[in-house]
Formats: sequence, C-alpha cells, structure tokens
Amino acid sequence: MLAPLRSGAKAALAGALARLERTPDADDVRRLLDGAYATPRAHVVGITGPPGVGKSTLLSALIQHWRAAGERVGVIAIDPSSRRTGGALLGDRARLVTDPADDGIFVRSMAARDRLGGLAELTLGAMVIMRALYDRVVIETVGVGQSETDVAGVADTVLFCVQPGSGDSLQFMKAGIVEIPHIVAVTKADLGTLAERARADVAGALSLGESGDGVWKPRVLAVSSQQRAGIAALAEAIDAHGAHLRQDGRLAQARHVQAQLWVEEAVRERFGRDGLRRAGDLALAPGASPFARIAQVAARLSAR
Amino acid sequence: MLAPLRSGAKAALAGALARLERTPDADDVRRLLDGAYATPRAHVVGITGPPGVGKSTLLSALIQHWRAAGERVGVIAIDPSSRRTGGALLGDRARLVTDPADDGIFVRSMAARDRLGGLAELTLGAMVIMRALYDRVVIETVGVGQSETDVAGVADTVLFCVQPGSGDSLQFMKAGIVEIPHIVAVTKADLGTLAERARADVAGALSLGESGDGVWKPRVLAVSSQQRAGIAALAEAIDAHGAHLRQDGRLAQARHVQAQLWVEEAVRERFGRDGLRRAGDLALAPGASPFARIAQVAARLSAR
Repeated sequence: MLAPLRSGAKAALAGALARLERTPDADDVRRLLDGAYATPRAHVVGITGPPGVGKSTLLSALIQHWRAAGERVGVIAIDPSSRRTGGALLGDRARLVTDPADDGIFVRSMAARDRLGGLAELTLGAMVIMRALYDRVVIETVGVGQSETDVAGVADTVLFCVQPGSGDSLQFMKAGIVEIPHIVAVTKADLGTLAERARADVAGALSLGESGDGVWKPRVLAVSSQQRAGIAALAEAIDAHGAHLRQDGRLAQARHVQAQLWVEEAVRERFGRDGLRRAGDLALAPGASPFARIAQVAARLSAR
Repeated sequence: MLAPLRSGAKAALAGALARLERTPDADDVRRLLDGAYATPRAHVVGITGPPGVGKSTLLSALIQHWRAAGERVGVIAIDPSSRRTGGALLGDRARLVTDPADDGIFVRSMAARDRLGGLAELTLGAMVIMRALYDRVVIETVGVGQSETDVAGVADTVLFCVQPGSGDSLQFMKAGIVEIPHIVAVTKADLGTLAERARADVAGALSLGESGDGVWKPRVLAVSSQQRAGIAALAEAIDAHGAHLRQDGRLAQARHVQAQLWVEEAVRERFGRDGLRRAGDLALAPGASPFARIAQVAARLSAR
C-alpha cells in the first residue's frame, strides 16, 4: 500500500488517511503503518506555542523556504478542542495558506484528542505514514502543557514560538512544568527592543536546562515573518538539531523511546489502568513496529 | 467514620486521608465517601493561573479574611508534575504559610494526576471529605489548559489569577481553549496603570462569553496581596457567585453534572475506551453517590 503513495499524488495519501480514520484496525491499514514505520524518511518538526503568536505565519515562511530548497513537506495541524463548544476550533485559528497545485506540500488538519483519547492514535498513524513519504513533516499544535507534551512525543525537533511579552509560557518552562524545547523562536521580532529583551529572557530561562558533551543546547532566535527576517537562520537551527540527532544513533534511540510510549499510551487509552496492569511487560524490541505491538496486546486483552 | 472527623481535630482528618490513599476501595473508605458526598457543607473555590502570578500569596490573604470572619477553611494544593524530573515540583512552588496551631485551617498537598491517572480520583475523594467538614474548601492548581479543566470539574467557583502582562493566558481564553472562569483576579495591582490595563484587557476578553438572565457575568478585580488591597472585594465577589449558585437549584445541578463526569472519568482511567464501551449507560441518579456508582461499575467490568 505504501508504493502507490510514493508517487506523490495527494489524492492517494488523502485516501489512505481516510482509510486509517475509518478502519484503523484493518489488516491493510496495519501493513501500511508497519511498512511506513520501518522506512522513515522525513525530519519531523513539532511547532507549538500559545495562540496568537503567529505560528501559522511562521510555518508558511518555513514551508516556502523548504520548498525553495526542493524539499517535499507534509503538515499535520492539530486543532485544539473548544472547552466552550466541545467542537474543534477550526474557525478561530489562522489557516495555513499553501498552493493547492503544488504536489510537494500536503496539509492535513486533525482534531486534538477527544475525551476518549480516540484521535491521538490516528495522529500517530498519519504522522508515520507522512514521515515515510516526505522530506519534512511538521506537526503544529496550540498550547502550553498537554499539547507541548504531545508534540514532544511525536517530533524529532520541538520548536516553541513565543512573542515579546509571553511571560506565562516562560514561567511554565522555568517551573519545569513543560519540557525545554530544542529551539525557541521569538516571533514578531520587528517590534525591536522588546523582541530582543524577550529573546534574552527566554535564553535566560533555558539556561536552567542541563548541558554538556553530546547534549543539545537549546537555541533561541528572533524572527519576523512579516519582514521575512531570521527565517533562514531558524531553518538552519532546525537542520542543526536534525544533524545532532543523526550522530551516535540518537535519532533511532529517540524514536524508539517515543514508540515505546506510544504503545503504553495506546494500551492505557484503550484499556485503562486496569489494562496496563493486565498487559504486563510492554517492552518493544528495537526497530519493531509499535502498531503491531499495540494490535497484539489489544487482541490479548480483548480476548481474556 | 464522618462523625469523629466533625470534631475538627486535624489528626483525624489526616488519618482519614491517609486511609483513602492507601486503600481507596476499602468498604469503610467507601462509606466515608458516600456519607461525605451526601452532606456537603463548604463552598468549593478553585484557584488557578500560571506559575509566578502570586496565587499562594493571594490565597494566604483570602484565608486570613475568611478566618477573621470565623470560617473554617480546608485547602488542597495540587502540585504539578515536573516534565523534567517526573516528580512533584514541591521545591519550586511558593508554599502557603499558615498557623499550625489554628484548628480552623487544614492544608493538604497532592500530586497532580500521574500517567496512570491514579491520583485524580484521590483528589476528588479528599475534596468531598473536606467539603463535608469545612465552611470553605479551596483547590489550588498551577496552569493553563488541563489543570484549569481539572479545577472546573471539582470547584463551585473558579477564580483565575493573572498578572499584568499575562497575555498568553488571555489568548487561551479568547481562543476558547480554556473555559471562562467565574472570577478573574489581576494580581500585583500595586503596579498601577499596567494593572488597570490588564484588568481592562481581561474584562474585554471575557465579554466574549455568553450572558443573559440567570447567567453569571464573570467579574474582573484588581488585587494587591502586598498592600492588602482588593481582598475584601474579591472575597465578596466569590460569595456573590456562591449566592448565584444557591438560586434556582443551580448548585445541586452543577454538582450533579460534575459527579456524572467523575464517574465517566474514573471508568475511563481504570478501564479505558474499551471499558467505557463495555460499561454502557453510566447515568447517575440525582443525589446518588458517584463513588458508589464507580465501585459498582468497576466490580461489573472486572468480573466479566
């Protein structure tokens, strides 16, 4: 099922994702997921930050940069659920605008996890399929807290966006409530002094993180999507983190740790605390497909 | 088991909470929870907001105000888990300082939910026990997002704290990602003009909420814990919301809706999506104990 998708036709990928949503446990979907998991290609970049900081605008600029360099880009935009209406907040978010005739860019919106946790697994599946097909996959989420943790669980490189005056987000990092991102972009840097102060504030907060040989030192960059300033430097920082991961087997190791957590999360979402206890050892062999492991455990727990 | 707790000795309550943690499913604990659920006494106030806005200082001032009025106060301080260390962030939070010789104030720290969701139920139980014993129960959490949702699920009145320049939190409210709180306290109002502008900003953001006959209109107040300014007005606003809830059966209705969600959450945490499907109808009869319902459903799901 993966081969026809490699032709690059967007309709084929859209069809595969629709099948994944409709029948996530079907055999052909499982084979697709296992095959895609075994053949990763893209560098997966997670972009997060509070609403209104200009993530979509920044992402549009990054996509233009990558497309100009000949890279094929897949995007998963995760819409937070509204506490007020219960529905996805499609109306409230700035939409990413891309060229529909360009086969080198594919954008997919997905709702954040629902109360039953049903959609998180679908997002993982969609990411893994797109990771096998594109040069760059971007996961975009809104938020501080849970959504940051979510993106750290699927992305190779986490980019956090703040704007000058985003004191709350920094407080979360300083307090250790959210993980330190790999890269911080201080947006709306055309505001001048305020942006530089925000950049210095963030850099100060991040210095709390550990450092040493072989440990990535978080980078803080000021960008202006409007003035298109700092975009190339940001793309370079993203690539530098990607290069860091490709040393000493770090990428494979980090992805294995992620996949192990996917298995545990999936079992917890499907069967709860009781299911985790009944499942016992969930260890995933290095390189093994987490989707196969989830299916195997689910069959065992359902059949008891 | 509830009667000896009513004597007001803190050691008795501490012992009961320790039993709740050790053997949450024991018969005597169940009876205590059912009895406490049936005899609510306190107005439950949830206090939340980003780290560093001065929640603990504000809460200390409110407690002094309530104690001076002769009210007995119970506090549950929920410590967020550190993403970095996995442990509770006890070291990072400003501690609430109270008089240990005062039997009219009881403070309990609890860790936020762990990955298995084990502690959320304990927090509910502790709240319900304290609600039966005190005049005022306060649940204090740090955060935006999940922790806000958590506090809205247990408190009668939600008080959100922001400081001047807390733009991110307001963006979350404007975007509908977090619910509109009943009352907003703009802290550190001794900063003058900036505090008034923040108050006006918040008031503007909240005007997005619905309003009409019988609908609570969120109140925004500026306070200075240091200068002890605005504390009495804040306490008055909290009481005004309490009085609003006591009209037209709103309090009983709101608590029933919360209890219904506790049942669903508990089944989901223990048995997952699969368990929710197997459980079928989880409807709670008006006034019935959610703890009894959870135990009943858990016994059925475990025994299949």
